[in-house]
Amino acid sequence: MSILVVGSVALDTVETPAGRVTEALGGSATYFSLAASLYTRPVNLVAVVGEDFPAHGLAVLRQYQVDLRGLEISTGQTFRWIGRYGDDLNTAETIATHLNVFASFNPKLPEEYRQSEFIFLANIDPELQLRVLQSVHGARLTAMDTMNFWIATKRDAVTEVMRSVDLVLINEAELRQYAGTHNLVAAAERVLSEGPRAVVVKKGEYGCSLFARDRYFAIPAYPLARVCDPTGAGDTFAGAFMGHLAASGDLSWEGMQWAMLHGSIVASFTCESFSIHGVLNLRRDDIEKRLGELLSFTQIPPAGEKRGFSHVIQNATGA
Amino acid sequence: MSILVVGSVALDTVETPAGRVTEALGGSATYFSLAASLYTRPVNLVAVVGEDFPAHGLAVLRQYQVDLRGLEISTGQTFRWIGRYGDDLNTAETIATHLNVFASFNPKLPEEYRQSEFIFLANIDPELQLRVLQSVHGARLTAMDTMNFWIATKRDAVTEVMRSVDLVLINEAELRQYAGTHNLVAAAERVLSEGPRAVVVKKGEYGCSLFARDRYFAIPAYPLARVCDPTGAGDTFAGAFMGHLAASGDLSWEGMQWAMLHGSIVASFTCESFSIHGVLNLRRDDIEKRLGELLSFTQIPPAGEKRGFSHVIQNATGA
Repeated sequence: MSILVVGSVALDTVETPAGRVTEALGGSATYFSLAASLYTRPVNLVAVVGEDFPAHGLAVLRQYQVDLRGLEISTGQTFRWIGRYGDDLNTAETIATHLNVFASFNPKLPEEYRQSEFIFLANIDPELQLRVLQSVHGARLTAMDTMNFWIATKRDAVTEVMRSVDLVLINEAELRQYAGTHNLVAAAERVLSEGPRAVVVKKGEYGCSLFARDRYFAIPAYPLARVCDPTGAGDTFAGAFMGHLAASGDLSWEGMQWAMLHGSIVASFTCESFSIHGVLNLRRDDIEKRLGELLSFTQIPPAGEKRGFSHVIQNATGA
Repeated sequence: MSILVVGSVALDTVETPAGRVTEALGGSATYFSLAASLYTRPVNLVAVVGEDFPAHGLAVLRQYQVDLRGLEISTGQTFRWIGRYGDDLNTAETIATHLNVFASFNPKLPEEYRQSEFIFLANIDPELQLRVLQSVHGARLTAMDTMNFWIATKRDAVTEVMRSVDLVLINEAELRQYAGTHNLVAAAERVLSEGPRAVVVKKGEYGCSLFARDRYFAIPAYPLARVCDPTGAGDTFAGAFMGHLAASGDLSWEGMQWAMLHGSIVASFTCESFSIHGVLNLRRDDIEKRLGELLSFTQIPPAGEKRGFSHVIQNATGA
């Protein structure tokens, strides 16, 4: 089934304890569309780059059959982000953000994109997210992400997007910021009260959680002994998550659980290399091997299920 | 099977966003022995209190059939801790520590305790932990905990204890501190290289992980929409974990997985009330209900296992 993503395509300069890359391919829509393309094609991409955008960037997206009719090439420079991660590799320090052509991004959907069945609104101005939602028709599933800047500056618009989508994907720090509470359960309930069917919370090295009104699911992350660069992990998570849902067409709770597992696995590969290199050349075997491992790391053989219960003393205070 | 715990019995004054308690029953050995007593009895306790220790504290422990022959009542005052938690409820700020009689604690094991089959060395001076290990015989399983203070001041002795036990239970911040790396996988490997069979990492709201040389298991925490006071959560985790292992006698990988689940559940109850009140009066039904929920929050029905794999595109870059 067809997926539409609206977000950024950027050139990232990133320094981590593992090294440094300069003007490497990045941006939420880039990571998302490559990851989603592992599951379903073509991904319809809506973004803007400048005239300086390197040809190899377009070539990589084309290689994954990303539909680039929605990629506007505008007069000016491509969005650039310069960031640094310290030893904990959990949060980036932004050294500079040059929005360039992204500052006046006004998503234009080619007519062919308007019937896309899965819509992902990556982290952009929530007012633009709303405009995109108004220009699509008959989507089976709509999802959004956002970030601290929009929560701080356009909170009402963020809330309006939450009310308009099926799924909210958000990282834990931003969920806490939005809800004004440290408690993730209470924070997710706050977002659910706005109307989305589910909230997917991305917790980095701690894995991810799926909250619905009366259901909950959580898995730990695939364990990595070495993280190179976590940039894009959240967007590749979203891409594999949505890609798997679109490929399976299974929007049940169980389908969402499997999509979470795939999101986690593809994100783990992203963290092991700079820029998009962890996702490039990923083969089905690589994903299946790690998925099998993650299952063995989290799932208890069902045969044992009865054993666990029988050792609690019946009446704890009794004789 | 018999369990021995050596640790502290204390009076805690704790303030959290949910309220405040003054001189409430606390200490690692208290939490551990009450939690372990939900699974196997009696727990052999070795600790020291002052002459001012309140009779109701002894009464609570006796109600759970904790063996108090190893509880020394010494001239002076009981160990007191005064602490405060902010909104994030993850880390306590210590306002004051009055070691009192605990400062000269020298664990004396009654002869009957020396054959205990499960030994838990709660967070005390690692040199005392080593002395306890030398005075027990034929234990089936030995485990230790430690804390930042000992890692900073008696690192070699901490390492020596790690070399001498089967299991290291430790919280994530202290594991990182000990190993000198933020990466938990690398940090756990560092501890495993010292010799213990497994490392159990307690991650608070993020759950817990079990590392062995070639195996890994992790579960998220039972989700709580409201945390009252996390004091003692790690020690009740350890108590239920060891208690379940002792009750089942199953030291296999699967037995450890079930012990982790029980540890998580009992710890979740601890967080919902001040002091030991979350563990008091817990009944088998309470634990089993929450355990069933935690399983449903983390385990995917096996019937779906094959579905998840089939949607990855075979050759990600191919046509």
